[in-house]
Amino acid sequence: MKPVTVLDTTLRDGMLAEGVSLTPEDKLELLALLDRLGLDYLEAGWPYQFPEDLEVFERARELPLNAKLVAFGSTRRPETPPERDPNLKALLRAETEVVHVYGKAWDLHVEKVIRTTLEENLAMVRETVAHLKRLGKEVIFTAEHFFDGFRRNRAYALAVVREAAEAGADLLDLGDSNGSSLPREIQEGVRAVLEFAGEVPVGIHAHNDSGLAVANALAAIEAGARHVQGSIGGYGARCGLLDLATLLPILKLRLGLDVVTDEALRNLTPVARAVVNKIGVGELDYHPFVGYKVFTHRTHAHVAAVLSAPEAYEPIPPEAVGNERRLLLPGIARASYLEALAARHGVDLSDDSAANQRIREELLRLEEAGYTYEDAEASFELVLGKLTGRFQPVMRVERLRLFEVLRGKRDPVVEASLRIKLGPKSEYVAAEGEGPITTLFAVLRNALREVEAELGPLAAYMDRLRLLAVRVRTFYPRDKKELRARVTITFGDGRRAWSTIGISADLIQAAWQALLDGVEYGLYTEAERAGLQLPLFL
Amino acid sequence: MKPVTVLDTTLRDGMLAEGVSLTPEDKLELLALLDRLGLDYLEAGWPYQFPEDLEVFERARELPLNAKLVAFGSTRRPETPPERDPNLKALLRAETEVVHVYGKAWDLHVEKVIRTTLEENLAMVRETVAHLKRLGKEVIFTAEHFFDGFRRNRAYALAVVREAAEAGADLLDLGDSNGSSLPREIQEGVRAVLEFAGEVPVGIHAHNDSGLAVANALAAIEAGARHVQGSIGGYGARCGLLDLATLLPILKLRLGLDVVTDEALRNLTPVARAVVNKIGVGELDYHPFVGYKVFTHRTHAHVAAVLSAPEAYEPIPPEAVGNERRLLLPGIARASYLEALAARHGVDLSDDSAANQRIREELLRLEEAGYTYEDAEASFELVLGKLTGRFQPVMRVERLRLFEVLRGKRDPVVEASLRIKLGPKSEYVAAEGEGPITTLFAVLRNALREVEAELGPLAAYMDRLRLLAVRVRTFYPRDKKELRARVTITFGDGRRAWSTIGISADLIQAAWQALLDGVEYGLYTEAERAGLQLPLFL
Repeated sequence: MKPVTVLDTTLRDGMLAEGVSLTPEDKLELLALLDRLGLDYLEAGWPYQFPEDLEVFERARELPLNAKLVAFGSTRRPETPPERDPNLKALLRAETEVVHVYGKAWDLHVEKVIRTTLEENLAMVRETVAHLKRLGKEVIFTAEHFFDGFRRNRAYALAVVREAAEAGADLLDLGDSNGSSLPREIQEGVRAVLEFAGEVPVGIHAHNDSGLAVANALAAIEAGARHVQGSIGGYGARCGLLDLATLLPILKLRLGLDVVTDEALRNLTPVARAVVNKIGVGELDYHPFVGYKVFTHRTHAHVAAVLSAPEAYEPIPPEAVGNERRLLLPGIARASYLEALAARHGVDLSDDSAANQRIREELLRLEEAGYTYEDAEASFELVLGKLTGRFQPVMRVERLRLFEVLRGKRDPVVEASLRIKLGPKSEYVAAEGEGPITTLFAVLRNALREVEAELGPLAAYMDRLRLLAVRVRTFYPRDKKELRARVTITFGDGRRAWSTIGISADLIQAAWQALLDGVEYGLYTEAERAGLQLPLFL
Repeated sequence: MKPVTVLDTTLRDGMLAEGVSLTPEDKLELLALLDRLGLDYLEAGWPYQFPEDLEVFERARELPLNAKLVAFGSTRRPETPPERDPNLKALLRAETEVVHVYGKAWDLHVEKVIRTTLEENLAMVRETVAHLKRLGKEVIFTAEHFFDGFRRNRAYALAVVREAAEAGADLLDLGDSNGSSLPREIQEGVRAVLEFAGEVPVGIHAHNDSGLAVANALAAIEAGARHVQGSIGGYGARCGLLDLATLLPILKLRLGLDVVTDEALRNLTPVARAVVNKIGVGELDYHPFVGYKVFTHRTHAHVAAVLSAPEAYEPIPPEAVGNERRLLLPGIARASYLEALAARHGVDLSDDSAANQRIREELLRLEEAGYTYEDAEASFELVLGKLTGRFQPVMRVERLRLFEVLRGKRDPVVEASLRIKLGPKSEYVAAEGEGPITTLFAVLRNALREVEAELGPLAAYMDRLRLLAVRVRTFYPRDKKELRARVTITFGDGRRAWSTIGISADLIQAAWQALLDGVEYGLYTEAERAGLQLPLFL
């Protein structure tokens, strides 16, 4: 048996994060992805509150999941028998083996939020759990606002949990539902419940309103809890929930608790990144363990040390969670970083040959202009590939015109024309569209269609390219004179995704550059993969 | 005396956060801002590593700061007398009353990073502290990597701190420099140092690589530490540092420690937001206590409860940290949120008059189209003001044309022409510029210059408007058909800043809408403020 079981509620409590909304398709994709973490329970929805979740449960039955699927709901309403309660009926329609119900453990909430008596609330807990047990379910009971209640009316908070225990709940989970508790208070509460819980495991559901969710989960486990609930990326209402992407490496690597296998832990970084990309809110840049920028070393001393003794500056080995180290130096010393980045793409810039000098100078010049490749590595690979001869440039843009008219409430008209050299041919094409970026993308694809015969199988590939996301940030460079745009575009071909970057005082020019980079990158790397020449372009 | 003193190092250790870089002017502005928090120490730079920080110290002397200014540096180099050591000479050139020096407390770092003997490292600590004390400085000594060292070579880690204590350090600060320690380990380390520290306060400098910096600072204080170091927003290398914006409310409101006054604490949210805006990296949306979205309530039950008993769903009263509550409901019930937002702008939508119905419908229609106003409240105020008659629209765009040519490496040419009705006049103007957004801004300003006489004093105001930032995110709406752009633009007039939003499949249209909103908002609210009519436009 696992020392601590883990319930992921990214797809249920995580959905209460502001700005988050997923379709049933999204949730099904995410379920398959989350299951790669080897967790015990995946909570997929709240059928009463969000009826569309029933579709998720219905279709999830066909997924080959290792985790147990969990449906969530509340205890019965006041004065309503459980078998007639609409919450519980919706919950049961999910047809999961495991159900998760919550009841109020803070007298203030009983009286002010659900507006019933303290006695009726105890009956609601007891009868709900008993009803679900009679139906053969595994029942996780969460005492909502347990710790808030424990601080103000200890006897009542404990009485609520005791009702659930006596009614046969399989797991007594304690909610720090406002995220207002301190680790010491969590431990007191957990210990008080353990006094009567017997063999039934006690768990913790921690919110992060005080930035302490991870610490509170650790404190609970130290006090004897054997179950935690959280989300990947910490999604949840307000400041979010316990972030499993932070907690799991600590449990496994620092405390030696076998909550997941070594192999599953190595999936953590890719899964967390995929989850955040899919949800489309929040980011992982500086996130413990799985962040893009967290095994980054920026000063000479750090870089030198980390190369000989990685533990000197890293809390865990990045590869244990599927992450990787990045060496990054300010100013002129950035050369070493670029060297390391180049090495990752198979290019050795370490010796001082004239060719390497030239490559380094060009990379540093780009850097000076504001190019950073953390979120646009395809552009780096492309620049490097062109400098080293891995990629032979096949196109040269001679003139691009963009024209747009807005008239009142009518749809905008956007037109683009492009004169471009594709190998020996010079093409002139036009396109129209709904916005500048999609129109520029269209005009470039139209140009490539003109050389369809020469592209051969790559022509069909070009049709698979999609724009997945466009991001623009503006910044004032050091001299503070002129606002510049930094555009990154993410492309996909249905199989992989890559991102490129463009920088210019002109947003359109920056976007055009990122577009060109993305299309070139797709084309060249697909040609490599398929072992195809680009004969036209030699 | 304060129970715990606080050192803010946003401007020193915070600068090691990836992507962060500030000019001396920025730092001086931020110093004045940070001082509103009433902290004990403000660390403003590292003169040896970043010589431009000397300018900051020189000019900061003229600022009327309440906090003590601190300069940072390392202990002397191996085999170099302190009076000849370049690090220490640079440090002393800052001419601060308080200096903060760090020495290595982990034998691995002594041997692998600075590559000297364990004995020489002890001498470096002792002689550095003694040298600075002889010069009359208040000396904060940080034992870098203390907790890592304490776990592996306890005797040596303690010996390093003891050297500093014996040499006269005024504060013994212990670094969890990799952020790899757990709260229990922090407490053990702090207690071990307290055994010999005597009257000298012990402090903690916690990194956040395990998401535990706040918890570790609390653990240290519980164990007897009387000093903490951190940054506002948690800026720092990798995953960042102890975030003072999270810790301060807990110390003051949950533990009752008088680290700052009530009044200073109320400055926390505005100061934190200003710091993050100035630094331009990271965001505070979901940040404990000071975030934009953290006193937000989204379901019926939450909203109803929070109105009668705020503590039911809030860990602290938002106003205690200068934040405010937001009520936000999904779907049709969002009406209540819009009502609350409207109420904040002095408009009562609660009764069901026909006028209110119309306003609510229009707001919900915009919402449906993807408009959310969290980061663009000026657009909300403008829409509402137009619907209620507070603002009389003065301009109607009849036709906007944008034309752009890119040719190889030459600068792009961007031109715009605009036919616009300004009150009874119809104007036709053109502008050219370096990018579409600045060009659109220019053409709109050119149009307003045509009615300069009618605008009177507002004409000069228009010249003060600046674009401070432009952000674009794309998203697929629920039907997933068509990528849409969400553009927000921040404007400033030198005195205040406001943000607006535009949404469209067409990036240019979205930007144009945000631009128009921003200019209209500036114009109308400035007219209100100055008590001016816009006679032209009646």
